Amino acid sequence: MRRAELEAYLHRHIPISVALGVRVREASPDRVALTVPLEPNLNHQFTAFGGSVAALGILAGWTLLHLRLRSEGIRARSVIQTSEARFLSPVHGPFRAVAAAPESGAWERFLATIERRGRGRLRLQARIDEGGLERALLTGSYVSFAGEAD
Amino acid sequence: MRRAELEAYLHRHIPISVALGVRVREASPDRVALTVPLEPNLNHQFTAFGGSVAALGILAGWTLLHLRLRSEGIRARSVIQTSEARFLSPVHGPFRAVAAAPESGAWERFLATIERRGRGRLRLQARIDEGGLERALLTGSYVSFAGEAD
Repeated sequence: MRRAELEAYLHRHIPISVALGVRVREASPDRVALTVPLEPNLNHQFTAFGGSVAALGILAGWTLLHLRLRSEGIRARSVIQTSEARFLSPVHGPFRAVAAAPESGAWERFLATIERRGRGRLRLQARIDEGGLERALLTGSYVSFAGEAD
Repeated sequence: MRRAELEAYLHRHIPISVALGVRVREASPDRVALTVPLEPNLNHQFTAFGGSVAALGILAGWTLLHLRLRSEGIRARSVIQTSEARFLSPVHGPFRAVAAAPESGAWERFLATIERRGRGRLRLQARIDEGGLERALLTGSYVSFAGEAD
């Protein structure tokens, strides 16, 4: 899936991504990078609102999972079950969430569980950075259900 | 602070709250209730996007803390440090985040720490419900810094 196509998909199906200002910068089954400008995501201290940071991280993880399942030819829908965010330092400019592939053993176990039980759970991490400096970490536990695809 | 005044404050200082569709329904130092419509917060499955749910919960907790500090006459700025969200079941309609007062011992310790060290940390929980049915739980750990007020 090309970046522009993925961006259009996100904007159409998850409309708050338009308000957040989400752009897709990298989109492969091994790595997803989403960016947003600061302005729509400001808080009362002129830094990034934690809710926007968490939302971008959750979206990056979900998008990576979506691309990985597609690349494996697996029809499944995924939702987030739990998330944890650690806000390390304030964000003063445009920021990015990067979700990277899980360790291969975890991925294989996840696929095997979907095959066996019709659903599987996977933890993914998204790092939020501003100009390369780490600002937050988002860990999401996602559940995928075999069946109709996202 | 009246509801309309608080709503205007949030919309002005945290602009994504406008896009989320945040309305202030209850605003006291003991309880804050924020609601949003489903439409701007939809996901690809026509339920609420987890990022919107988490953001609303983070905002409800922050708003409660903001009102409590004001009501005590304490000048401080607060930011979120960590958050955890548990998504219990899908949200199919407008939803609400309710943040309630912390247990009084925790609040007193928080105030004493701000007084002694110029900063304090407080955990607050927001329950997200849809028509009274619990859909998610958001726990946030906030840090307040004495000085200029939010």
